[in-house]
Amino acid sequence: MSSEIVVEPAPHDVWLPDGALAAVGRRRIALALPDLSGPAQRIPRAHPDNSAEVTATLRAEVGRATAEHGGAVVDPDDSPDLLLEASSVLDRSSNGRNEDQVSTLDVESRFRFVRDGGRVTVTADTATALLHGWFHVVRLGETAFTGPDADERHAPAFALRVLDHWDNVDVHPVMGQVERGYSGGSIFYADGRVREDLSRVTTYARLLAATGIDRVCINNVNVHAREARLLTDDLPEVARIAAALRPYGVRTHLAVSFAAPMTLGGLATSDPLDDDVRAWWRAAADRVWATIPDFGGFVVKADSEGQPGPFAYGRDHADGANLLAEAVAPHGGVVHWRAFVYDHTQDWRDRTTDRARAAYDHFAPLDGRFAENVIVQVKHGPIDFQTREAISPVLAGMPATRLALELQVTQEYTGQQRHACYLAPWWSENLGFRPWGEGGAAVRDVVAGRGPGASAAVTAAGGGGIAAVSNVGDDRFWTGHPLAQANLYAFGRLAWDPTLDPAAVLDEWISLTFAGPDGAVHPRVREVLHAVLDESWRTYESYTAPLGVGFMVRPGHHYGPDVDGYEYTPWGTYHFADRDGIGVDRTRATGTGFTGQYPAPWRDLYEDRATCPDELLLFFHHVPYSHVLHSGVTVVQHVYDTHFAGVERVRATVAAWESLADLAPGAVPTDVDARVRERLAEQLRSAVEWRDQLNTYFLRKSGVADARGRTIY
Amino acid sequence: MSSEIVVEPAPHDVWLPDGALAAVGRRRIALALPDLSGPAQRIPRAHPDNSAEVTATLRAEVGRATAEHGGAVVDPDDSPDLLLEASSVLDRSSNGRNEDQVSTLDVESRFRFVRDGGRVTVTADTATALLHGWFHVVRLGETAFTGPDADERHAPAFALRVLDHWDNVDVHPVMGQVERGYSGGSIFYADGRVREDLSRVTTYARLLAATGIDRVCINNVNVHAREARLLTDDLPEVARIAAALRPYGVRTHLAVSFAAPMTLGGLATSDPLDDDVRAWWRAAADRVWATIPDFGGFVVKADSEGQPGPFAYGRDHADGANLLAEAVAPHGGVVHWRAFVYDHTQDWRDRTTDRARAAYDHFAPLDGRFAENVIVQVKHGPIDFQTREAISPVLAGMPATRLALELQVTQEYTGQQRHACYLAPWWSENLGFRPWGEGGAAVRDVVAGRGPGASAAVTAAGGGGIAAVSNVGDDRFWTGHPLAQANLYAFGRLAWDPTLDPAAVLDEWISLTFAGPDGAVHPRVREVLHAVLDESWRTYESYTAPLGVGFMVRPGHHYGPDVDGYEYTPWGTYHFADRDGIGVDRTRATGTGFTGQYPAPWRDLYEDRATCPDELLLFFHHVPYSHVLHSGVTVVQHVYDTHFAGVERVRATVAAWESLADLAPGAVPTDVDARVRERLAEQLRSAVEWRDQLNTYFLRKSGVADARGRTIY
Repeated sequence: MSSEIVVEPAPHDVWLPDGALAAVGRRRIALALPDLSGPAQRIPRAHPDNSAEVTATLRAEVGRATAEHGGAVVDPDDSPDLLLEASSVLDRSSNGRNEDQVSTLDVESRFRFVRDGGRVTVTADTATALLHGWFHVVRLGETAFTGPDADERHAPAFALRVLDHWDNVDVHPVMGQVERGYSGGSIFYADGRVREDLSRVTTYARLLAATGIDRVCINNVNVHAREARLLTDDLPEVARIAAALRPYGVRTHLAVSFAAPMTLGGLATSDPLDDDVRAWWRAAADRVWATIPDFGGFVVKADSEGQPGPFAYGRDHADGANLLAEAVAPHGGVVHWRAFVYDHTQDWRDRTTDRARAAYDHFAPLDGRFAENVIVQVKHGPIDFQTREAISPVLAGMPATRLALELQVTQEYTGQQRHACYLAPWWSENLGFRPWGEGGAAVRDVVAGRGPGASAAVTAAGGGGIAAVSNVGDDRFWTGHPLAQANLYAFGRLAWDPTLDPAAVLDEWISLTFAGPDGAVHPRVREVLHAVLDESWRTYESYTAPLGVGFMVRPGHHYGPDVDGYEYTPWGTYHFADRDGIGVDRTRATGTGFTGQYPAPWRDLYEDRATCPDELLLFFHHVPYSHVLHSGVTVVQHVYDTHFAGVERVRATVAAWESLADLAPGAVPTDVDARVRERLAEQLRSAVEWRDQLNTYFLRKSGVADARGRTIY
Repeated sequence: MSSEIVVEPAPHDVWLPDGALAAVGRRRIALALPDLSGPAQRIPRAHPDNSAEVTATLRAEVGRATAEHGGAVVDPDDSPDLLLEASSVLDRSSNGRNEDQVSTLDVESRFRFVRDGGRVTVTADTATALLHGWFHVVRLGETAFTGPDADERHAPAFALRVLDHWDNVDVHPVMGQVERGYSGGSIFYADGRVREDLSRVTTYARLLAATGIDRVCINNVNVHAREARLLTDDLPEVARIAAALRPYGVRTHLAVSFAAPMTLGGLATSDPLDDDVRAWWRAAADRVWATIPDFGGFVVKADSEGQPGPFAYGRDHADGANLLAEAVAPHGGVVHWRAFVYDHTQDWRDRTTDRARAAYDHFAPLDGRFAENVIVQVKHGPIDFQTREAISPVLAGMPATRLALELQVTQEYTGQQRHACYLAPWWSENLGFRPWGEGGAAVRDVVAGRGPGASAAVTAAGGGGIAAVSNVGDDRFWTGHPLAQANLYAFGRLAWDPTLDPAAVLDEWISLTFAGPDGAVHPRVREVLHAVLDESWRTYESYTAPLGVGFMVRPGHHYGPDVDGYEYTPWGTYHFADRDGIGVDRTRATGTGFTGQYPAPWRDLYEDRATCPDELLLFFHHVPYSHVLHSGVTVVQHVYDTHFAGVERVRATVAAWESLADLAPGAVPTDVDARVRERLAEQLRSAVEWRDQLNTYFLRKSGVADARGRTIY
């Protein structure tokens, strides 16, 4: 063997190529940064322990951008184009938001943006918040300085904005290193331990800070034996990761095992009411914060898919969550406790058990019993991140509990980063969904602590915020499919402001990501990216699972079609297709009663076939193939039509991308183009496979020919 | 952690507990064993290199049995009850078999058994053959000495009787250490290398010698990178395994990768016609035999399921096999070349490609082109070890080729050693199947080199014999399910004499395995074991796959039902069930033409629904659910009836076994009883699952209610 030096290409710049900072980098910029960690500036219950690091980051960011693009760092008194000023101005402001309603955590993020005659001043209480203001200016680009005079307060809608990494230290023999990861290995771990070189983790923190994310849980919620030790033996290594995230104000969380007092502590029990267990968790938390002062908290998957939990001791999830909450409370920590609890050993013959009901049945009765620093983390739908699901009724059923919405940026069921599928429109629908009907609060209000009947404590804490499973790995493009970067970006932006228009967020991402050295994006590139991505989630839905049916995927890996794949399994995910019809009857009248978990009007709208939206019809009703949808076609013809149309839309997507070949070199970087083409080819192959399997399955089962006589095998 | 000494229980005695040797061990036994390795006794083309070891084994066996049971080792002249004599008597015998028709390999196995006035003499040419005679006496037990006077020649029907181990050195992340193994890890390898302690391998060789098996291939036919090195770097370790097998006359074979000249030898090609490749294989074989003089040969899976092969160079399988044959010929070695070649990336939409046709289409045209020491190893059915398949037409289509029948002792598709499924009746049907109709030759004749039109060379070589995938692992009971030991035993016995009655073979196994210290078996135990096992394969068929349909199993692991699991995959294993009917049209008239690969009369009997046997109807025909079988019921009612009945038969099996609880302790050892009960409970659970999934699937699809109104979910 010859010895070779392998030069790894540098990770892709994602949405922060040098060109993205061209507009601000051309300016004269001043910083006014007193010692934010000093007692005079200290803000109660905020965590300024990262102030020194983030302050240094700010200086470095400004220095780098101006050096690259011809601007200058000047004195605050020297008429700068942009002044970044650390000062608690918002506390003294009389207009804008009512200060009493702002979560104390908000001070870590909120900033004031003033443009006066083309000169911009960004003011914030903390260095991290000022960093958010800096990236706000970056995102605005030239318009930051050219717009009309303005005085804006910016604060995130959600105080807690978390990315969960399902990363393992070890490579799992089946799941790989990152569970449901489609972007290579972990950026945190390699060779069975925390990576020596964590510079990419700092780059990641920079990308997140530029969107608004400020917390990362660094290990899989399925906590295996090796990963459990991150909490104890490996704490110094976790501290190294925290140190790599800290310069960009991103805090570290850990997923922990409920059985840790036994498996790591050698106790005979993990009973949440046992004094030794409580003492063990307190000591464990004390050690964590002693090592990592700005540590965020714990994430727990308990009594779920084989993970240990309080049920083993006859305790409930409030007992379990409060045990950990008590341990982290003295440090200002939080516990994210997942509501993803259901019977994964269900008998498919048992029509009375409905997995969709499980989270509500388990958690709603516990409303009011969770400690103030517990966040119950609720998947957007009642099943499991399907391409189309009804919203989880838990989100409307626990007003006295801090609830977080959990989304999946990683495309487990939405094409695994081989299909282009821009998820922001789906998330936006979920965030904007109004469980109490038109005029009522939206999901985004609930998780901000402002749902109807929200307890004072929940409102004061700003609710539970938002969390999502990251799609990032050690792949050169970070996300496998380069266009899947847009999902990560959009999640961060919607976590900051869930009312943003997904197409506008995509436009932001395009402006940053495809910025040439001068900061400009070729208009054809912008146009094609919108054509490829704007409707891509609906396109994906059209050639995969129709009418909210869900889980027609290959068991295990969840890629590609297998209509009956989960039909007779213990997972509670059935469609009950027979020769006459399909769908799950979840009505109160004749089905599982799941519709009754919703408040009015949805409990009634879903209950009735006549008012149930087409796209969720099979989620709530078992109907004959001949049932006529609101769209005017039958169910089975809808299956055929959408699957044929979906493939044609993918063909159009491929053609749109290929039209970019005419552009001058550099409009789209060669390596991005190559990777996107490779993925689009697979998407088209897979879409054809979905179309043909679904159509054949339903033709064989229903016997109904396609009204338009197209080829079904 | 406290330090504990873990005492592993000794492996189970299987069919050679001490009691099994009680009858012979009570006798006065003499050995007349000249130096069989001396030139005077050397037999051309046989491999006496193990004579010294096997001779020592014989002495030890006799010494141990007589010491345990009160007999004695005496001088040949001292009127022994049993004389074991090494002498080439058969060469000088004038009666019995025609010596010219006996394969030269037979001299390693054949023996003469003479009983004269209650005194027994066993005579054989070689030590190994004498060992077979010894175990013949052991099997006969008391009747060896009490029967009427006799003078019998015994020789195996097949000169080559091989067990293939699909064992990996490394533990495969998905497949485990033993591919399709259900009995724990490998007895050969642990911790990534050949085991230090190989005493269990010698015990295994003893068990095999007692049935008639004399060759073992020690590694998986899917040769991964680690295992490929057994041929080169690890040869000294392979020699240790060979040394552990040798005392019982069992010879070692290796599965090799066709790409070895590239992956191990650093050549640029593996082209079978390349001179460097030919030289590489010759040198490799030379090294093997220099290290292991009684080495058997190579086993090859080429151009199959991703394994490399000659197709990459535009060569055919005769070119590939002859390359290796040339290398091993100077050493008397053989090459087992598998005929399991098909397109495993088939498009399910393509109705013209039929996997059943593949082996014949690839191999039959090559008949006559394979070297004399090549054995083409043919799976019994044209698909893949399904519970019910038609016989492979390759077995009737290559008269000028040495063909071996390949069976699967490991229960991949027949319950994975969690279900009691005695396979000897199935093997017996296969071996006795007459491809040319009543009065014609049987499969057992073909693989013994005596099929119609067999070339002189094939007949002289004794054909290709028989091979099977072992079901043994490092489990205490060797085979997971203790009753699965009967399959291993029966394979060995049928390999020696394929005309044996499966029930009689089972009876032998019971007599040996459940022998008390005095050699006796409780009659109720015998009765129950027959009740549990005699019909267990047909019972398994009844609650799993009906009418020869096949592959309704969970993809990947192949355990439990999934009717559509393989329906839309690239594997070529479809049933084409729609709302009207099911089955694969393999007729010449309207289907894939597969029936045309059979000689008359089967080509016509299978072609016509009216004459096709019920149990293979769906293998050859696509029929409506309303089609009336010869049995008088419709296809769909047959599905319901057999699945309900199958579960009831399993219940009866469980009840039969539980009735043994009345017996005095020791009639069935406690640990055997516990393991069997655990497995029976799983078998019943699984049978119910099969029943309900299959019935529900076909009710949903056909809409035809059960005529007897039983519960279908």
